[in-house]
Amino acid sequence: MADIQQMAHAIRFLALDSILNAGEGHQGVPLGMAEIAATLYANHLKADPADPQWPDRDRVVLSNGHGSMLLYALLHLAGYEHVSLDALKSFRKLGSVCAGHPEIEQHAGIEITSGLLGQGIACAVGMAVAEARLSARFGPSLVDHRTWAFVGDGCFQEGIGQEAISLAGHLKLGKLTFLWDDNHITDDGDTDLSISEDVPARFRAANWHVQEIDGHDIGAIDAAINAAKADPRPSLIACRTTIAKGIPRLQGQRGGHSAPLTQKDSEEARSLLNWPHPSFTVPESVLADWRSIVPRGNETHSQWQTALANHGEAAEFRRWTTGTLPDGWSDTVRSISISAADKAASLPTITASGDVCDALAEALPELMVLCADLEAPTNHKRSRHAFTASDRSGSYVHCGVREHLMGAMTDGIAAHGGLRPVNVTYLAFADYERPAMRMAALMNLPGLFVFSHDSIGVGSNGPTHQPVEILASFRAMPNMLVFRPADAVETAEVWQIAQEHRTGPSLLALSRQATPTLRNETGENLSRKGAYVLSEPEGQRDITLLATGTEVALAVEAASLLAKDNIRAAVVSMPSWELFRDQRADYRAEVLGTAPRIGIEAALDFGWERFLRPEDRFIGMSGFGASARAEVLYEHFGITAGRIADVARDLTGKN
Amino acid sequence: MADIQQMAHAIRFLALDSILNAGEGHQGVPLGMAEIAATLYANHLKADPADPQWPDRDRVVLSNGHGSMLLYALLHLAGYEHVSLDALKSFRKLGSVCAGHPEIEQHAGIEITSGLLGQGIACAVGMAVAEARLSARFGPSLVDHRTWAFVGDGCFQEGIGQEAISLAGHLKLGKLTFLWDDNHITDDGDTDLSISEDVPARFRAANWHVQEIDGHDIGAIDAAINAAKADPRPSLIACRTTIAKGIPRLQGQRGGHSAPLTQKDSEEARSLLNWPHPSFTVPESVLADWRSIVPRGNETHSQWQTALANHGEAAEFRRWTTGTLPDGWSDTVRSISISAADKAASLPTITASGDVCDALAEALPELMVLCADLEAPTNHKRSRHAFTASDRSGSYVHCGVREHLMGAMTDGIAAHGGLRPVNVTYLAFADYERPAMRMAALMNLPGLFVFSHDSIGVGSNGPTHQPVEILASFRAMPNMLVFRPADAVETAEVWQIAQEHRTGPSLLALSRQATPTLRNETGENLSRKGAYVLSEPEGQRDITLLATGTEVALAVEAASLLAKDNIRAAVVSMPSWELFRDQRADYRAEVLGTAPRIGIEAALDFGWERFLRPEDRFIGMSGFGASARAEVLYEHFGITAGRIADVARDLTGKN
Repeated sequence: MADIQQMAHAIRFLALDSILNAGEGHQGVPLGMAEIAATLYANHLKADPADPQWPDRDRVVLSNGHGSMLLYALLHLAGYEHVSLDALKSFRKLGSVCAGHPEIEQHAGIEITSGLLGQGIACAVGMAVAEARLSARFGPSLVDHRTWAFVGDGCFQEGIGQEAISLAGHLKLGKLTFLWDDNHITDDGDTDLSISEDVPARFRAANWHVQEIDGHDIGAIDAAINAAKADPRPSLIACRTTIAKGIPRLQGQRGGHSAPLTQKDSEEARSLLNWPHPSFTVPESVLADWRSIVPRGNETHSQWQTALANHGEAAEFRRWTTGTLPDGWSDTVRSISISAADKAASLPTITASGDVCDALAEALPELMVLCADLEAPTNHKRSRHAFTASDRSGSYVHCGVREHLMGAMTDGIAAHGGLRPVNVTYLAFADYERPAMRMAALMNLPGLFVFSHDSIGVGSNGPTHQPVEILASFRAMPNMLVFRPADAVETAEVWQIAQEHRTGPSLLALSRQATPTLRNETGENLSRKGAYVLSEPEGQRDITLLATGTEVALAVEAASLLAKDNIRAAVVSMPSWELFRDQRADYRAEVLGTAPRIGIEAALDFGWERFLRPEDRFIGMSGFGASARAEVLYEHFGITAGRIADVARDLTGKN
Repeated sequence: MADIQQMAHAIRFLALDSILNAGEGHQGVPLGMAEIAATLYANHLKADPADPQWPDRDRVVLSNGHGSMLLYALLHLAGYEHVSLDALKSFRKLGSVCAGHPEIEQHAGIEITSGLLGQGIACAVGMAVAEARLSARFGPSLVDHRTWAFVGDGCFQEGIGQEAISLAGHLKLGKLTFLWDDNHITDDGDTDLSISEDVPARFRAANWHVQEIDGHDIGAIDAAINAAKADPRPSLIACRTTIAKGIPRLQGQRGGHSAPLTQKDSEEARSLLNWPHPSFTVPESVLADWRSIVPRGNETHSQWQTALANHGEAAEFRRWTTGTLPDGWSDTVRSISISAADKAASLPTITASGDVCDALAEALPELMVLCADLEAPTNHKRSRHAFTASDRSGSYVHCGVREHLMGAMTDGIAAHGGLRPVNVTYLAFADYERPAMRMAALMNLPGLFVFSHDSIGVGSNGPTHQPVEILASFRAMPNMLVFRPADAVETAEVWQIAQEHRTGPSLLALSRQATPTLRNETGENLSRKGAYVLSEPEGQRDITLLATGTEVALAVEAASLLAKDNIRAAVVSMPSWELFRDQRADYRAEVLGTAPRIGIEAALDFGWERFLRPEDRFIGMSGFGASARAEVLYEHFGITAGRIADVARDLTGKN
C-alpha cells in the first residue's frame, strides 16, 4: 500500500522548495490540498503519464490556478517527463513550463490555462459535456473518463462559478467532481469579510451530490471520492483545510496565501512534519509510491488501445479526436454558398450561418452548438436536438442565460478535444463572455463564437443591445480572428475558414436584418484574403469604398449611384482585418488602391485609421445607438448609400 | 380603498395597447407582473411623482428591462408627467422616452437603463448600499428609503445575479426587495430546458428572507411586501405568475414573451378580463385610484423638506446629493501631487492612487471605495474602515471575488446619487466587469474605475494577469475616459479630472511596479490636455517619443541616451487619448510635431495608428505576455530605453 501521507508531504515540500527558490509564489493551495491531490492520484486518477494526451484520460483542472505548484509537483511526482526537477527549479522564470499560473501544455499534463477565477470550473463543465457526448457516440469502451477540478472560494464567489454549478446540476454531469479547498481564507483575510452563505446548500439547491469532510484526512478523502464516483449527480467534496498547512508561521493565516517564504519557514515546516530530506529531494520509497501510478496507467491505456483497435469506428474516433476534417466536408459548405449565390436571396447573415450549421449536422457531426437562451432568433438548432440529462446524443446545449459559462464551456470542449464547439448568442452579450474568449485566444483553442445582432441593425431594442464598439474591442485582442461577412456567400466562406483554423478562436459578427447576396460566383474562397475587391469600375478608380458586413451592400448601392455621375467607385469587402494584414504588401496595396477612401461600418471608427489616411473619410457611428427601427436608425445616423455617395462626390471633388 | 385589481388591469391594457401600436415589444412581463406592480405602487411606494428626483424616494429597478412597458405604464398611471399618453404611443420610436428597453431619465422616473440581464438587480445592490451609508451619515429623517427590483428568471441565471444575491445577503441589505416574476418561461421555452435548481433555496442559503406567493393574488402580494419591510434581511418575494396573463392565445406560453400581438388578441383580452374601455383609455375611477399616490407622495415629501430645513447638516446633505465638490478639496489632491514631486520618489502608480484616496478620506467623505478581494495589493483601504452588516458608516466595501457585481454596484451607487463610487481591482479583471462599465458609459454615470497591474509589469503571474489589449478595448468604448498616468503627479491630476467629470465614467490604468516621479512642477494640471510635451529638447526636434504610463519613464531615459548622441528627442506624455482628441488642432499639431515619431506602450498597437504615420514606429507588445519578473519581460519584449534609442537612431538616420 502506498503511504499517501508521505506522498502528500512530497507535494508539500516540492512546492515549498520551488516557491522559496523562485522567491515568490502561492503556497496556500499546494500545502492545503496536498492530501486531497495525493489521494486522488494514488487511488483514483485514470491517466497514463507516459502519454499525457491519451484521449480517454481523466481531465484535471486547477481552477485555483495561483496554486500552480500543486499541479507542477503532482505532475513531476506522477512521472510526467516534461515537468522535470529542473522545471520545478525554474518555476516562474521565463520559458519555464512551470509558469506563475498554469499555461496549457497538454503534452506536459497541463490541461488548461487557469488563474482567472471561475474559468477553470466552467471549462470543466465543458469537458464533462464533451465526455458525455463522445461516450454516447463511441461507447464507454473508448470514452469513459472523469473531470476533476481543484477549486477555491474565489471561483465560487465569481458569478461564472454559479452558472457552472447551476448548469452542471441541471445536466446531471455525474462524472464531474469539484474538490473544494474550503480554507476560510481569501486574499483580504477571513472569508467572513465578504461571504456568509452556506455554499454546500447552494450546491444542493442545484441538485449536486455534496459531501463535507476534513481535507487532511486521507481516509475520508478516499471514501468521499468513491462516493462521488458512485453517485449519478455531479459531486462537490467540500474539504475543510488549513491554508499553507505545515508552515507554523503561516498556516491558517491570511499570509498563508502568498506571503514570501523564508529559509526559516522551510526549516520549521520540515521539523513540524518530520520531513528531514534536503531541498528538492524526495525519498526513494515515496517516489516509488508515486511512480506506481505509471504502470497502472500504462495498463489501462493498453487495454483501451486494444478496445480501439477492435472498435468498428476506430477511424472515425481518431478523426474526431485529432480534429481532422472529413473528406468532402467543404463541399457541403460550398453547396450552401452556391445555393445562396444562385438564389441571390436577401437574408440575415445569422440565418445564413444557421443554414451552414444545419447542413453540417451530418457532414461535420462533431460540431457541438451552445446557445444562451436565444434559440429562435439565432437559428442554429433547426437540424439538431438537445443534449440533456437523459439524452447525451444531442449536439445542441441550451445553456440558459449564462453567457460567461458558455464561453468557458466552449474553451473546455475545445481543450478536451473530440468535438468542435460553436457558441451562439447576440454580439451585445459578447462582453459577458469576453474573459472566456480571451482565454481561448491565449490558449490557442479553436472555438467558434457566432454572434448575431451585430449593429444598430438590431433596431428598437435599443443601445443596450446594439454593439458599436465590440467589434473593435475584439480586433484589439491578440489571436482572435474576427469576421464580419457581407452576405450568405461570405458567411459560408468564413465558416469554412474558421473550421480549418486550429490555432485560435474565430468570431463571426452577423446581422439580425436581411442583407442581399452580393456575390454571384463562389469559385474561390475570397474571404481567405481578409479583404478583396468586390467590384472594380472600368478605368481608373476615383474612389475606394471599404466596408464590412451589412454595410457592403450600402457601398455597392452607393457605387451604382456614383456610376450615374461617372464617378468610378471600387467596392472592397473586408470580412477579416486579421487575414488581410497577413497578405502580401503588394496585394494589400492593390486592394486599397491610391484613390481617396471611405471606410463604412455601422460601428465606431476606432482602429480604422490603419486603412484610412487623414484625408480619407469614415461613415459609421460616433457614439451609442438608439431605440427605433433599423432602417430609421441607419437614416438617423447617416449610414446610407446616399450619404456615402455624397461624401464620395465631396472627396473626389466631383460634386 | 383603491381597487388594485382594476389598477393592475390599467397597466395590462396600456401595455398591450402600446405594444400593439408599436407593432413589437414584450408583453410577457407587464401582463404577468401587473398585480405585483399595482400593489407596490398603491400601498407601499415612497415617491413623489411631482418631483421624480427627490433624493429620499424609493428606487424602482426593472431588471427584466425587456418588459419596459410595465415601467412606462406605471409611471404614466402614477402621474409622472414626462411619461404622457403620447409618450406611450411613441413606444420604441426614435427619441421617445419609452424606448425599447428603459433608458435612464431620472426626471421621468426611469432610475437606470436596463435590459442586459442581471445588471439591474446588481445596480439595485449598489443603490441599497448607498442608501444604508447615507442613512447612517445623515440619519433616517433625511435618508430612509427602499430599493425594489422587478426581476425575471434570466437575471437569476446570469452569474452576476448570484454575486448580487450573495453579497446582499452578506451585507444584510434589509431595505432591498426582489419581486421575482416566476413564470416558468424563458425565450427558448419552459425554464426546464436550462434550469432545474431550487431558486428560493439558493436565496435562503445566502441568508435572504424568502416568501413564495401567487403573483396574481393582491392580498398575498400586499402581505408579502409588508413582511419584507418588517424583516431585517433582504427579501425575495417569489411570485408565481402566468406570463402574458390575460391574452388567451399566449398566456402561460413561450409566445407570451414577445410574440407579435394582434387586434384579435386585444379584443379577446378585453373580453376575458372584462375591460370594455377603448384603446389607451383608462376609466376615471381607476385613474383616480392611481393618482391618489400623488398627494400621498407630496405629503411625505413635504414632511421630509421640513426635516431637511431643520437638519443641522442640510447644506452638506445637499452638497453630497447634488454631486458638488467641496471648496478646497482640490488643494488636498494638489498637496499629494506636490509631495510626490518634492520627494521625486519612485513608486507604483497604484500606490500613488491609494495616497490620493487616503487623503480624500476626510476632504471628500462621499467617496465609496469598492474592492474585489485585493485590499493589500491595491492600497485603497488604508484610511478607511469597512462598510458591513453591522457598521454602515464605512466607506470601503469588501466585495469579494465578484468583479461584475462590483462594476454594476458602482453604476447603482452613481445612479442613486449622494456618494462617489471608486471601483478597485486589477486591469486583467476589467473584462469581468466590462458589461457594467459599458452601462456606466451608456448611462453617463460618473463612476471611477481604478485598475492596478496594468501591463506585463505584473511580472511572474503571467499572461492571464497581464493586460495587453484591455486599454485599447476601453479606448474603443464611447464615453469612457481612459487614463494611464505616468507617475504620482499625473495620478493625482487624473484623480482630480475624474472627480470633476460628471457625464461619464473614468478608468485609471495603474502600475504594480514602481516608476519614478517625472514631473517636478505641479502648477498646471497638464493631464487635462490629454497629452503634453514633458520635455522639449533645445533646438529643432529630431524625434518625438509618445508614451503613456510607466513607459514615459523609459522615453525620458531614452531621450537622455539620445542627447549624448546629439539627437534631440521630445518626450510627450499621453495620459488620456480622449482628452487630447478634444484639444484644438493647433495644440495637437504642436505636441505631436512633424519629426519622426515612436509610440511606446507596453500593450498592442491597436489604435495607435491615429498618432503614428506609416513611416513612424511602435514599441510595445505584439501578443500576449509571459511569466517572468517584470524587468525580464520588458527586456524580453524589447520595451527598454536602449531599444527606443536604437529605433530613434534608425528613424533619424543618425545611427
